[in-house]
Amino acid sequence: MRVMGVDPGLTRCGLSIVEGGLGRKVTALDVDVVRTPADMELAQRLMRVADAAEHWMDTHRPEAVAIERVFAQHNVRTAMGTAQAGGVIALAAARRGIAVAFHTPSEVKAAVTGNGTADKAQVTAMVTRILGLQVAPRPADAADALALAICHCWRAPLLERMAAAEAKAAEARRRYTERLAEQRKAVRG
Amino acid sequence: MRVMGVDPGLTRCGLSIVEGGLGRKVTALDVDVVRTPADMELAQRLMRVADAAEHWMDTHRPEAVAIERVFAQHNVRTAMGTAQAGGVIALAAARRGIAVAFHTPSEVKAAVTGNGTADKAQVTAMVTRILGLQVAPRPADAADALALAICHCWRAPLLERMAAAEAKAAEARRRYTERLAEQRKAVRG
Repeated sequence: MRVMGVDPGLTRCGLSIVEGGLGRKVTALDVDVVRTPADMELAQRLMRVADAAEHWMDTHRPEAVAIERVFAQHNVRTAMGTAQAGGVIALAAARRGIAVAFHTPSEVKAAVTGNGTADKAQVTAMVTRILGLQVAPRPADAADALALAICHCWRAPLLERMAAAEAKAAEARRRYTERLAEQRKAVRG
Repeated sequence: MRVMGVDPGLTRCGLSIVEGGLGRKVTALDVDVVRTPADMELAQRLMRVADAAEHWMDTHRPEAVAIERVFAQHNVRTAMGTAQAGGVIALAAARRGIAVAFHTPSEVKAAVTGNGTADKAQVTAMVTRILGLQVAPRPADAADALALAICHCWRAPLLERMAAAEAKAAEARRRYTERLAEQRKAVRG
């Protein structure tokens, strides 16, 4: 499964491509950080981020795009820009028929370090080890984008199995209700 | 000047087209509200909002798109969705070479009612009167989208004149500095 990880942002937007194999085997194919100047107009900054992300989607053809879910940040203006950068990338993926998933920072940290409150240094260290990289990815946005993709590779099969189990249970309930209705009809008839 | 007003949102996104004429003359050409179900995936909701806004841009060909600037809302999740809806519309405009402007809710209220803290009923009443509508636009998102476009029609010439005055002042400063340097050179030489 090929996953594109996105640590959204306007000043720095981390992008990564990770290939997930059997079990927990994951390989990094690409990682980079897109930057836009703070004095550029918002719409132009969004365009630069979207252009880069779309180029990655068209080049690497990921099956899923995993984006960090933004909650709140100290700076409301920054949080809005981050949400908007994530939004334009989610839209680009949806238009290409690529599945989009959002993972919270604590889900990502828990997946790669086993601790939902791990700090940046711990995340970077684990990402480096998991992917068997010669050097630690820099800046933190690059490491975060890789962590997001790894998190998705590992969580996606679990989420799919849960969805399949739910669908099976719903089907069983439907059949039971049908059989019950038939039996009642037979008794009455 | 033809302006598209956008009151961004995922549950309801207000869209309007207003034609600004001489002085404060403004005419409403279209207004509508795009809705997306809350249980739909975020990326799909963004796609539906973006598709509608892009259809409006391609049909009405506005010269500018005025979007409400989101600051903070009580519900962080709602604020993020609102920011993302505004973001995908700003991107669509930028890709079409259409100017994008953001106005704060208080700038919009001040422009149409003269009071930056006016309530929704006052905004709707003034929008109805300014545009000479037979009935008040409903829901509030439709009225807000019209108010945004009116605000932009009235503020844009002012903002342009201010930008022109600033550019002129910068040019005068540049010339003065040049002349000063020449005079100093003449004295030294």
